[in-house]
Amino acid sequence: MSLLSSISHPRDLDALSIAELEALAREIRAFLVENVARSGGHLGPNLGVVELTLAIHRVFDSPNDPVVFDTGHQSYVHKLLTGRQDFSRLRSRGGLAGYPQRSESAHDVVESSHASSSLSWADGISRAFAHTGRTDRHVVAVVGDGSLTGGMTWEALNNISDDNDRNLVIVVNDNGRSYAPTIGGMARFLNKVRTGDTYRSLHEGSASLFGRLGPAARAVYRGLRGGTHGFLSRFVNNEALYSNLDIKYLGPVDGYDLEAMIETLRLAKEYGAPVIVHAITEKGRGYEPARLDEADQFHAVGKIDPATGRPVGSSGSTSWTDVFASELLAAGEQRSDVVAITAAMLRPTGLLPFAQRFPERVLDVGIAEQHAAAASAGLAFGGLHPVVAIYATFMNRAFDQVLMDVALHRAGVTFVLDRAGVTGPDGPSHHGIWDLAMLQLVPNIRIAAPRDGERLREVFREALDVDDAPTVVRYPKGSVGTELPAVERRADGTDVLVRGESDDVLIVGIGPMARLAVDVADRLRAQGIGATVIDPRWVVPVVPSVVELAASHRLVITIEDGIRVGGIGTRIRQVLREAGVDTAVDELGLPDEFIDHAERDEILEDAGLTAAKIAHDVVSQVLGTRIPIARPHADADPDWADAADAPTRSEATDGEPQARGR
Amino acid sequence: MSLLSSISHPRDLDALSIAELEALAREIRAFLVENVARSGGHLGPNLGVVELTLAIHRVFDSPNDPVVFDTGHQSYVHKLLTGRQDFSRLRSRGGLAGYPQRSESAHDVVESSHASSSLSWADGISRAFAHTGRTDRHVVAVVGDGSLTGGMTWEALNNISDDNDRNLVIVVNDNGRSYAPTIGGMARFLNKVRTGDTYRSLHEGSASLFGRLGPAARAVYRGLRGGTHGFLSRFVNNEALYSNLDIKYLGPVDGYDLEAMIETLRLAKEYGAPVIVHAITEKGRGYEPARLDEADQFHAVGKIDPATGRPVGSSGSTSWTDVFASELLAAGEQRSDVVAITAAMLRPTGLLPFAQRFPERVLDVGIAEQHAAAASAGLAFGGLHPVVAIYATFMNRAFDQVLMDVALHRAGVTFVLDRAGVTGPDGPSHHGIWDLAMLQLVPNIRIAAPRDGERLREVFREALDVDDAPTVVRYPKGSVGTELPAVERRADGTDVLVRGESDDVLIVGIGPMARLAVDVADRLRAQGIGATVIDPRWVVPVVPSVVELAASHRLVITIEDGIRVGGIGTRIRQVLREAGVDTAVDELGLPDEFIDHAERDEILEDAGLTAAKIAHDVVSQVLGTRIPIARPHADADPDWADAADAPTRSEATDGEPQARGR
Repeated sequence: MSLLSSISHPRDLDALSIAELEALAREIRAFLVENVARSGGHLGPNLGVVELTLAIHRVFDSPNDPVVFDTGHQSYVHKLLTGRQDFSRLRSRGGLAGYPQRSESAHDVVESSHASSSLSWADGISRAFAHTGRTDRHVVAVVGDGSLTGGMTWEALNNISDDNDRNLVIVVNDNGRSYAPTIGGMARFLNKVRTGDTYRSLHEGSASLFGRLGPAARAVYRGLRGGTHGFLSRFVNNEALYSNLDIKYLGPVDGYDLEAMIETLRLAKEYGAPVIVHAITEKGRGYEPARLDEADQFHAVGKIDPATGRPVGSSGSTSWTDVFASELLAAGEQRSDVVAITAAMLRPTGLLPFAQRFPERVLDVGIAEQHAAAASAGLAFGGLHPVVAIYATFMNRAFDQVLMDVALHRAGVTFVLDRAGVTGPDGPSHHGIWDLAMLQLVPNIRIAAPRDGERLREVFREALDVDDAPTVVRYPKGSVGTELPAVERRADGTDVLVRGESDDVLIVGIGPMARLAVDVADRLRAQGIGATVIDPRWVVPVVPSVVELAASHRLVITIEDGIRVGGIGTRIRQVLREAGVDTAVDELGLPDEFIDHAERDEILEDAGLTAAKIAHDVVSQVLGTRIPIARPHADADPDWADAADAPTRSEATDGEPQARGR
Repeated sequence: MSLLSSISHPRDLDALSIAELEALAREIRAFLVENVARSGGHLGPNLGVVELTLAIHRVFDSPNDPVVFDTGHQSYVHKLLTGRQDFSRLRSRGGLAGYPQRSESAHDVVESSHASSSLSWADGISRAFAHTGRTDRHVVAVVGDGSLTGGMTWEALNNISDDNDRNLVIVVNDNGRSYAPTIGGMARFLNKVRTGDTYRSLHEGSASLFGRLGPAARAVYRGLRGGTHGFLSRFVNNEALYSNLDIKYLGPVDGYDLEAMIETLRLAKEYGAPVIVHAITEKGRGYEPARLDEADQFHAVGKIDPATGRPVGSSGSTSWTDVFASELLAAGEQRSDVVAITAAMLRPTGLLPFAQRFPERVLDVGIAEQHAAAASAGLAFGGLHPVVAIYATFMNRAFDQVLMDVALHRAGVTFVLDRAGVTGPDGPSHHGIWDLAMLQLVPNIRIAAPRDGERLREVFREALDVDDAPTVVRYPKGSVGTELPAVERRADGTDVLVRGESDDVLIVGIGPMARLAVDVADRLRAQGIGATVIDPRWVVPVVPSVVELAASHRLVITIEDGIRVGGIGTRIRQVLREAGVDTAVDELGLPDEFIDHAERDEILEDAGLTAAKIAHDVVSQVLGTRIPIARPHADADPDWADAADAPTRSEATDGEPQARGR
């Protein structure tokens, strides 16, 4: 690894010959396979952009020239070239983030992993540079063909094409895929370009072709700015991306031909107006197991054996996604009106079995959550029942469509949100912690949060029976775990998981937090505090059982794995007060902040969402007499080390419970 | 009006000759001018689509063939042709809605006024028809060129182009404008088509040209499906919209040549695959005052004199928009880093004076709220302070971008939301009642709701001083009214508007609801209940004064003109509980439902947001002893008729205030 270790800043690349850069690319590929195999992460996308990233950093001067990576999962090479070569704790707390992160480096600009935003960022930054006279600075956006299916890129390009006087280079990293192959008419167009004669000949002879382009040729090219494409057409394809928009276009270029990439980017850099550089790449380049993986070419992997690409240490346990996948398939067998929609994530969301069985009933709309929601309203109008399967964090993209297209029109559309709650190593933009708070603002909506696999099956079937309102079924990432049985199913569908020995505390466990709620109840029981635990299963609208049981308890705790602000807890408290139930409510959930990458358990602990912490707080309230408890008794659990900070139980129970102003 | 009154269903058009249809078009134009002048409404867009709508209903069979109007403000002609000719109470409670509304007619499909969604709907409906074998049904989407700047249309077209086996006709109503002229590269492209030789010659000779196309020609055309554009190119322009996407294209067609429009739509109908019909129209067609209005060609008007187009009965009072416009201009004079962004609504949002003074510092991004937000994050990264001026209801489109692009990156971007709260006659999709609840979910965000013009000036300036977080300033539609002075400005910026004689009730008036809060306090004082009214001005994060004052009162009332669910009130209550303040809180706001068109006051009354209702409820709580009040006294106001329903004051105060479980 001698070359790589000598690079601590992109300018260190300047001294390298093309041959040395090629050797460096080989080193980087080996480094990526070795390290990502160990930690898990986005392997395929990064293997695809090694040369492309080297060329960008050779030609442009980051961070003076900001490089914006769309989606950001292809920034590992960028990290390696900008002083970050310790991948030992990639995506773990304290280690490198899996996406660009400004706190790591001045070379990182955009952190969000939500696709299709890079061109908007680049439009804004380049306008700001132009507006403030910093005409020496360039902006580079690296965007995949998959991201181009997202409408934001159209909005951005429509604007970029409208003001030519700035330094903006759009590198289209065209590997023909998002997770799976990119869909739609645009993908067909790109495919035509990719397989066309011009690209083939370019691919074969580009080194010599670009070798002939000296400074004089570039001067001619610059002189043509604003004029015809005549000179360019000598070496680029006549067909251009977004021809309506009339943005200058260079390409297609072989993304693995370093000389061609560098020369093309130099031309683009010197142009002084927005230019699209169309680079043809492939996911998983240079790593045979990835190349052979037809589904997603090792888009994102867990820990693998670097030699074979096979998962290591995989538990083989059933995931939430698996349960949904099998239940969707079963529903599809029974109901011909059930159709499934994905936004470019057929396999990760569990639609694959359904798609294999009913290929004509699955629609991949591209990275286009807005369209997924609004088109589903149309499908429902046409008599079908669409199931939109999506990661919870990406649902944020379609709030307006769920509200205005689905709910306003009382369309029976079921949204199935995977990766809801704290997801862990993918960082702030991948946590699904806004879905509950955001979606509960939608009139008519019904939201279910299953606590285990059996409940997921139940609520999904119940959702399919709702044909006049949006329904949401949301669940976390990972293993579904064991069944968590109820001691009673109430008439409104609420499950009682623990029946307390007294009417002290009611704990409402939302979705997977029901398991935590049961643990809290166990700890409280050991402290002599009776706690009843319920799982309402459907959390919006608030079911009658919550109100009835809250009225007969002295304290209500709600636990959700979404943000506390505006969360389900606030709705429960509001409904209680409307019903004249003034029982105190503590709403527990995630804090109102962006949460960095770490393990799920680490994050929940930071947020105080552990049984020990929650039980301790309830005990403190009791000891502090803030909550008058029915039948406290004296045998304190010695486990409660922190309880020493609070007034002792005997002090508290000596006095009368204090009425607190209501 | 003999012809128009004979039309009660689109099929009544079948008997009319082209000459009679032309006469009907003249009648409809006269009807529109006369009626919209009386009620106010969208005049320009509807005058532009008279012939286009006639042609659609002549060729297609609504409602069997659903017609989806993008944005919906151009559906008046459609209403006239589908049995709705009583425009006397247009946009008033009980009268016709200003947008399509399913409850009015089976001919209405999509109600939302949010732009760019029609193609997604049409994609979904046409797929459902194809999937269920209803191949006789066609779907027609009518979309303006302005709406095509929205990314959703790109997402939809990318999908529409991907599955050809269905009946879908996209009528592009190209008038070169959204509110103002359409921006961006796509608009330049359309303009080129519109002014090109092919269109000009077509425009001049289309009647004879289309007259020559008989059934035989159409049969040839059908035979070409899936083949070349050869036959079509005889009479259509060679340049096609979205050429990358390879969607069949017919046009451009003169949108006022009924014979040509009908013939082109027939060709499109018979094609059996998605077709774009490009119709050239003009806003305000046939009404000279609209044609002469360069700003927006009478896009939407209040009551006007039909002869002159001049406003009648206009108060001339200063609007919230006016105050913002002048303050933005003043800020622009002082700070060169302040730039303004609009999503196709320069004038309605008050940016015009700033744009005239600093044309190079204003950016109209088209109907592209997502891009507006994300590009602003880029502008802020580049050292500028963007002010994004937008209607509150359209902010819903950019939740993810405010969250992931602006807030996560701590970008100093100020969102100025006009038409926040209940707007009135424009109906469910125009009310700005979700902005507070939605935006408070964004970490780091700061939200201000000014109560009057002076506060708007203050908080806007304060927002411009925040350079590390998104700021929001939101205010309602209409007249800003008189100043509502404070009796005290507290250290944290909270204004005390009324200082109660006792510590009974604290009323937190949010934004314009502060005026209502003062009225409530007046009524309570007459009942012997002391009420303090505060306006925190900045409602997110919750300021310390709210907590301090709540702690010393017995009941807190929060009043906001957004939805109660997840609203600012829930946040205040959460912060109080965190601070150990258990004072009861009643959160008042709009209900969790879609609100139909009516006057603002009618809607607020329905929601119980009147001083009489709120004061009555507080008194009931006091009489019912739910809230123990400090110094009740006996002289009940005889105005309180309903109070008889509650226990009498003497009964209530005989007993001890009851402790209610906390």
